[in-house]
Amino acid sequence: MANRKKPLILICNDDGFYSPGIQALTEIAAKFGDIKVIAPDRQQSAVGHSITISTPLRANKVKMQSGIDAIAINGTPADCIKLAHDKLLDRKPDLVLSGINHGSNAGINIIYSGTVSAATEATILGYPAIAVSCAEFGEDADLSGCQEAAARMIEYVLKNGLPKGITLNVNAPAGPLKDLIWTKQADSRYVEEYDGRVDPFNRPYYWMTGKFELLENGNDLDVSVLDQGKATVTPIQYDLTAHAFFDMVKTVKI
Amino acid sequence: MANRKKPLILICNDDGFYSPGIQALTEIAAKFGDIKVIAPDRQQSAVGHSITISTPLRANKVKMQSGIDAIAINGTPADCIKLAHDKLLDRKPDLVLSGINHGSNAGINIIYSGTVSAATEATILGYPAIAVSCAEFGEDADLSGCQEAAARMIEYVLKNGLPKGITLNVNAPAGPLKDLIWTKQADSRYVEEYDGRVDPFNRPYYWMTGKFELLENGNDLDVSVLDQGKATVTPIQYDLTAHAFFDMVKTVKI
Repeated sequence: MANRKKPLILICNDDGFYSPGIQALTEIAAKFGDIKVIAPDRQQSAVGHSITISTPLRANKVKMQSGIDAIAINGTPADCIKLAHDKLLDRKPDLVLSGINHGSNAGINIIYSGTVSAATEATILGYPAIAVSCAEFGEDADLSGCQEAAARMIEYVLKNGLPKGITLNVNAPAGPLKDLIWTKQADSRYVEEYDGRVDPFNRPYYWMTGKFELLENGNDLDVSVLDQGKATVTPIQYDLTAHAFFDMVKTVKI
Repeated sequence: MANRKKPLILICNDDGFYSPGIQALTEIAAKFGDIKVIAPDRQQSAVGHSITISTPLRANKVKMQSGIDAIAINGTPADCIKLAHDKLLDRKPDLVLSGINHGSNAGINIIYSGTVSAATEATILGYPAIAVSCAEFGEDADLSGCQEAAARMIEYVLKNGLPKGITLNVNAPAGPLKDLIWTKQADSRYVEEYDGRVDPFNRPYYWMTGKFELLENGNDLDVSVLDQGKATVTPIQYDLTAHAFFDMVKTVKI
């Protein structure tokens, strides 16, 4: 047992390798294994599951805020995981983490999230993966509760593994951790999304803005539980098939 | 009945407003209602469900290849649908179409697809929506089978509607339509994804490439059915919750 290698934990995010969030996640992950940070070279928020196909990727050695070595990629979070998997790692990771994102990724935000897409990409490639986000946007938010929630789920996954095709999506409020609850993705959307303006040349343009609208409420829904000041873990999957509807219509002639 | 308005059909894609695919989809959709084309101003493949938040969007009047009026947006497919919904339409669409994409969007490709993300965004906003893709990449592929499959599903959705939260994802081979089958998303992934090269300054860079790997096979799976030369309709959902796993773990203390 003495010679047994420590677990290898690959860490990515969508705010870029220099953000406080990935720094905080790296610190907590280092308690559980050897870490390797491979992350975008700049802010990549709201890129969803975007991948780079028309320009080549570069992998550059950089240092994080704390001085820890990292590799910065000129691509999206999903690019980072793909390139790490195919070219940049000496051994396969035992776990992939993404975050800590500055801003929650609950409800419909899961769809738009670069943070979650890195974890999902890892799941597609066969690795257990956890995305972690803080409900507060500020770069100086207290991430201690997120770190504690991440630690608990890292421990859970290293011990229990995850079924094929399933990713864990963790969200926590800023500040110390209260409860940590299993949740489902709350149905939600954005309304009144654009602020229309006119430029100095009298041409219209539109800034994305908009209000988050919760379409359902419940004690097992990520957005609702997070609003109660508790942290959430939502298991998500990349199989998008609407199975119940499929079973209903599969014999309907089209 | 004589004064009843024709259905309004909003059309988007990810190859840009000038592609042959959106032209072909517009032609077939025009048989079922009034059409409005609002699409990216350029190629946006593999953007996934990316949205634009840090730069403003512009909406410019353009003409498609055939001379039909369209609006071109300097953003992603999801941006187009969001901006159309919030600012650019006089009345709510009865149906949203996305495509015809040049290249199939079956199996894991659904995750990376800008074409599918436009339709999913429409579903999030409450509109019935269909994504349509052609299995052949070439811009001169025979899209007649895709048009026929699209026509059948447009007719189906205008007649039956779609349950909340469900999007239809249609794929068809190039050439005339044979069968059109209800399918599920086949589990799949890409392997050996990057071609590593060295630039004239001796620095490495990586082109995305890779082989598609099918991880399951079956007569009700999109990739398999498409490989048999048939067209497919996969109902997908934006609720990513892994419900079966959630039910298993929800009482497990973490």
